[in-house]
Amino acid sequence: MALVVQKYGGSSLATAEHIKNVAGRIGRTFDDGNQVVVVVSAMGDTTDDLIDLAESVADQPDQREMDVLLSTGELVSCTIMAMALRSLGYKAISLSGAQAGIETTTSYGQAQIAGMNPDRIMSELDADHIVIVAGFQGVTPDLNVTTLGRGGSDTTAVAVAAALRAARCEVYTDVEGIYTADPRRVPKAQKLEEIGFEEMLELASYGVKMNPRSIELGMVYDTPILVASSTDDGPGTLIHGETDMNRDVGEIRNRVGGIATDTNVAKITVRNVRDRPGIAANLFEPLADQGISVDVIVQNASVDGATDMTFTVKRTDLDRARHVVEEVSREFGGAEVITASDLAKLSIVGTGMLDATGYASKMFRTLADNEINIEMITTSEIRITCIVAEGQLDRAARALHSAFDLDGPESGATG
Amino acid sequence: MALVVQKYGGSSLATAEHIKNVAGRIGRTFDDGNQVVVVVSAMGDTTDDLIDLAESVADQPDQREMDVLLSTGELVSCTIMAMALRSLGYKAISLSGAQAGIETTTSYGQAQIAGMNPDRIMSELDADHIVIVAGFQGVTPDLNVTTLGRGGSDTTAVAVAAALRAARCEVYTDVEGIYTADPRRVPKAQKLEEIGFEEMLELASYGVKMNPRSIELGMVYDTPILVASSTDDGPGTLIHGETDMNRDVGEIRNRVGGIATDTNVAKITVRNVRDRPGIAANLFEPLADQGISVDVIVQNASVDGATDMTFTVKRTDLDRARHVVEEVSREFGGAEVITASDLAKLSIVGTGMLDATGYASKMFRTLADNEINIEMITTSEIRITCIVAEGQLDRAARALHSAFDLDGPESGATG
Repeated sequence: MALVVQKYGGSSLATAEHIKNVAGRIGRTFDDGNQVVVVVSAMGDTTDDLIDLAESVADQPDQREMDVLLSTGELVSCTIMAMALRSLGYKAISLSGAQAGIETTTSYGQAQIAGMNPDRIMSELDADHIVIVAGFQGVTPDLNVTTLGRGGSDTTAVAVAAALRAARCEVYTDVEGIYTADPRRVPKAQKLEEIGFEEMLELASYGVKMNPRSIELGMVYDTPILVASSTDDGPGTLIHGETDMNRDVGEIRNRVGGIATDTNVAKITVRNVRDRPGIAANLFEPLADQGISVDVIVQNASVDGATDMTFTVKRTDLDRARHVVEEVSREFGGAEVITASDLAKLSIVGTGMLDATGYASKMFRTLADNEINIEMITTSEIRITCIVAEGQLDRAARALHSAFDLDGPESGATG
Repeated sequence: MALVVQKYGGSSLATAEHIKNVAGRIGRTFDDGNQVVVVVSAMGDTTDDLIDLAESVADQPDQREMDVLLSTGELVSCTIMAMALRSLGYKAISLSGAQAGIETTTSYGQAQIAGMNPDRIMSELDADHIVIVAGFQGVTPDLNVTTLGRGGSDTTAVAVAAALRAARCEVYTDVEGIYTADPRRVPKAQKLEEIGFEEMLELASYGVKMNPRSIELGMVYDTPILVASSTDDGPGTLIHGETDMNRDVGEIRNRVGGIATDTNVAKITVRNVRDRPGIAANLFEPLADQGISVDVIVQNASVDGATDMTFTVKRTDLDRARHVVEEVSREFGGAEVITASDLAKLSIVGTGMLDATGYASKMFRTLADNEINIEMITTSEIRITCIVAEGQLDRAARALHSAFDLDGPESGATG
């Protein structure tokens, strides 16, 4: 008998019919002799509807209140799922984040899991219950409700799996697994059977819809994560610590694992900044205070004591970021602020790049051969990222997918 | 500076516009120098929508899960109200039933408030917050969420007011106060300026939309309750312990205070029951086990060792009640079960009846003069109730309203 944690996303729970289907899948897992804990997101577009409601009474809804409001979406879906399971004859019980022992920091809207007390879940499992946990939410030491930010249900699921020492955490979603590239952009993208935590972390940060914090948790607690479709019985992709890529040094290791793409990118350039110590801190601290994360940063070499500073933010943060930057740049003596939002991030990712050379030059050569201009470049140990024009993204991604030998047969998958 | 508890019902919170209007009223109460605690119901038809959702996945939704599900309706409305107040510049904070310290029994769906720990509310008031409490819900000692049954937000409000020793509890609703009769049935019904707890208790049990448990709480803790309109500034009706009726013995005391009507009535007759000890218990215990409350009970004198037993239940409980009774009556040796649902309850209520005579005979005479047949009769110390045909209810209510000198000028009120 294994202990399995399953997570179902909002699109898998959009209607009563979806919920009944998922209840059937959960029941079969239980019937196979497993102990089952299920983490659910809010049904369909519930979260967006609640945000709309809040914005209809307040221009800038209070974040503490917003968290309580949004947490109701998962309370609804977990109780409905428990009811559906009970009507199929299973003993099921729903638990809120607080009841499930999810303790978080007090950063409303983007709280982090600070601790996990699995006692209540354990006692419900001991009573032969299927336990349905409301994802995306937790509670502070002062018993205020928090949410974990978009994708937070993934984090709940992995945290629960880690705390329960579950055999694995199964994340069911509307795609069949992790691909070598986004199949909507690269028709020859192939589904991976497995992928390492580090590679997945880079992919998740750079386009794949999986909360990076959940991958980190899986890595730290060595909890394997299976990503698979909630509607078919395909094998999905296993994210885990020891992949074939690490074991089988040679042909497989020495390669790029996938191409990541992201269009939620905008660029801000501050021109003619006087180059003196503290400029970067003065610029980026107020952005951090507003919860705006800055990604790629390029500072040109100084000419005559003045420099240009360019950086990217999420496109959805651009308006707020520009507002902050313009205010700060006035203190720099009227430096000019230029923004652009028709950009995209394109990355090659792979642990194979860790100790090898030639990947960057091959990437740049491939893009040049395809007449794609690189606006900015940034790298990590297992990733090289270029900022390119959004209109050239698909062509660029396909070219790199071919160049790094990732192409499979043309796929009909649309993600 | 007074401490005021206000309660707003679902129809006063149906849309964002309603909520903004109510937020304005709450803000004005705070601006007048009061400490304000507000108890809210779920917005508009939220509760019915959630019940529909539950019934779309389960024929008989589990009651524990149902309570968590329904509790989300008030969580939504209390956070939205707090946001609306904050956007008007007030410091407001929402609290769930659990956070507000509402401790209940474990009777899911119809839990009773077992205790109230006002510490969190007090500390938020000390921090100059307007406190918005989710009505209708509480938490058991095991931290499971419960609901208090329909109208439970009234009970929350009075319990909070009692625990905080508030000056009074103001219940804002879609009617202007308590009337001598339902204005939709009796056009000459008059709004009462005040009414005693005992009278209100009888009216609330017999038709007026106010949770009887909330009146009991107000009576026990001597907390005055003002019922008034959420949309105009009319004076409403004050429900309290010492009314003019008690003080001014004589003309005023010696009268009926109001006419109560209720059409949620059905009748069950079990014929030819063998008359032996334990029959009534055998019949009514299984009904109580199912949470079906039995109201008027009449047992005919026994003829040849057999008797007829007739009683009323809520019309909405009739199907379930008939099922239980038919099962039990098979054990009585095939006693015949007959039901009827086209009935109504009609009551005269008044503390003036407590030590006086002639009210019952005047009621029966008035109904007889109007050719209205009485099917069953039951009385309490301050109430006389007749079961009549539903089709005759309005005519009967108007006749009694006139006969007991309650008529005012014809009103345009429609309730």
